[in-house]
Amino acid sequence: MMVSIGIDVGGTGLKAGAVSERGEILSKVSCPTLPERGFEAVVADMARLAVRAAEEAGAAMEEVRSVGIGIPGVHDPARNLVVRCVNLYWKDVPLIDEMHRYLSVPVYVDNDATVAGLAESVAGASRGMHSSVLITLGTGIGSAIIIDGRIYAGAHGCGGEMGHIITHAGGILCSCGHRGCWERYASASGLIRLGQEIAKRNPDGVIARKSGGNPEAIDARMVLDSAKEGDPDAMQAFETYTEELAIGLSSIVVALDPEMIVLGGGVAGAGEFLLQAVRKKIAEYAIFPDMPLPRIELAITGNDAGIIGAAHLGR
Amino acid sequence: MMVSIGIDVGGTGLKAGAVSERGEILSKVSCPTLPERGFEAVVADMARLAVRAAEEAGAAMEEVRSVGIGIPGVHDPARNLVVRCVNLYWKDVPLIDEMHRYLSVPVYVDNDATVAGLAESVAGASRGMHSSVLITLGTGIGSAIIIDGRIYAGAHGCGGEMGHIITHAGGILCSCGHRGCWERYASASGLIRLGQEIAKRNPDGVIARKSGGNPEAIDARMVLDSAKEGDPDAMQAFETYTEELAIGLSSIVVALDPEMIVLGGGVAGAGEFLLQAVRKKIAEYAIFPDMPLPRIELAITGNDAGIIGAAHLGR
Repeated sequence: MMVSIGIDVGGTGLKAGAVSERGEILSKVSCPTLPERGFEAVVADMARLAVRAAEEAGAAMEEVRSVGIGIPGVHDPARNLVVRCVNLYWKDVPLIDEMHRYLSVPVYVDNDATVAGLAESVAGASRGMHSSVLITLGTGIGSAIIIDGRIYAGAHGCGGEMGHIITHAGGILCSCGHRGCWERYASASGLIRLGQEIAKRNPDGVIARKSGGNPEAIDARMVLDSAKEGDPDAMQAFETYTEELAIGLSSIVVALDPEMIVLGGGVAGAGEFLLQAVRKKIAEYAIFPDMPLPRIELAITGNDAGIIGAAHLGR
Repeated sequence: MMVSIGIDVGGTGLKAGAVSERGEILSKVSCPTLPERGFEAVVADMARLAVRAAEEAGAAMEEVRSVGIGIPGVHDPARNLVVRCVNLYWKDVPLIDEMHRYLSVPVYVDNDATVAGLAESVAGASRGMHSSVLITLGTGIGSAIIIDGRIYAGAHGCGGEMGHIITHAGGILCSCGHRGCWERYASASGLIRLGQEIAKRNPDGVIARKSGGNPEAIDARMVLDSAKEGDPDAMQAFETYTEELAIGLSSIVVALDPEMIVLGGGVAGAGEFLLQAVRKKIAEYAIFPDMPLPRIELAITGNDAGIIGAAHLGR
């Protein structure tokens, strides 16, 4: 029985799993990342996890078709290097070569948001779609473009970084060094900032109270829950937030016209509440009123996305 | 000898040509559009032009592989209708069916910017590229995405409309009904607006003088030429303009990472002067400093783009 191994690399934990030809997860194993040990030690653990994942699925190493790795960073396929992986302190790391010290199977590497997009397209919301875009709403905005079931990564492997499209020229400074990137406004961080502004303006309000008066304690969930409960301040923040979200999504629609846009990441935990608001706003932003719009759905592969998507790299 | 016919539909003129398998134009014919006659009369002329273009190339109708049409509007491939063509007063026009009243060959229709992008990718600057994006800087901004030598038009055929990505949320009202679309800032119209502002601020300046004191007479050429000549006001307008251009282009780079971006349309007539400025700014906007950037080049197919590109539709 042939399997593929998917490895999900995070700043705190490594997860690996064997995935069948049909896309089912047959085993799951994990260990802490401990990136301060240096990349060689981390990669040795990744290789060990891959072997254990195969073993626990009852697959011999000869039955492992490939090992795929999703990283929180950028991989340059031309030079076979992980160019940057901030959480892991990696810069120009030869991840694939290092893995091949332990394993002789093909190894593929891609960005974690890209991998999650692939997972959704093979086993999630956008399964069977002509084209889809995954947007993960977390600390930043991750994204992936899937065309005909395959990742579209661009000519140099660094496309699909929609968090850095500029929606507010001259706006808030972004971690990338430029101003007005979409993720400054429409990520969980953008929503938190709106919540903090409200708590400052209205220190007796619901959000200020939930945070115990500490603006640093405000998280996206607090703002979303308060909005769901009908708090007018939070509802206003949510309205502004979904407007920001729609502004970037509408740029994706006019540029790519995908069959589906899938929303994932922490903010997507707001579920139907978010979905209804975004669908409404996207319709308002249509530039061709007579043409169909992309479907907007929530990601469903969740915690398994990293393993499933990574296992499908190179397929 | 097999040929394809390309038809370039404009608000004032119709042009058609026979194009060989190798992409050479073998004949060119044209006539006025006169759209006020109604679409049936215009389409009858288009069919006549197609027949004449074949005749003048010495090809029998049996040797015509296809007729492709580039329109200044939107075609819905699902319903086989031209949804909208403002210059021609067309709305929901069954262009392909109407052409088939006269011709029995396959007929393909697409947007003129898309067709121009295809022309560049088969016979122009982006020939042989993995992926390219054509941006035409005219009254608005037209665009086309070409992946693996084929137009990427999205799930419903309305992708590649990058003029309407929102770079200035809440900014200037656009003809599409939304605010802050890139084309309000980075099209020829955007440049003209900057020139008009200068002429207003400095009524004795070079631009005001060139326009004879009439702000309505200012065109993109006047501003570009004045900047080339070193007029400080015009140079400042040009600096602002290329910044606006780079803001949208950088969003295209992070989203699509194409191998090449081709600049066409009136403003691209500024040639190397524009190219050097845009290349410099695009490098400043890079979010991955270690990764290669798309090449930026000027469109070269010019007036023949519509015929060449349309003839390649469906190939």
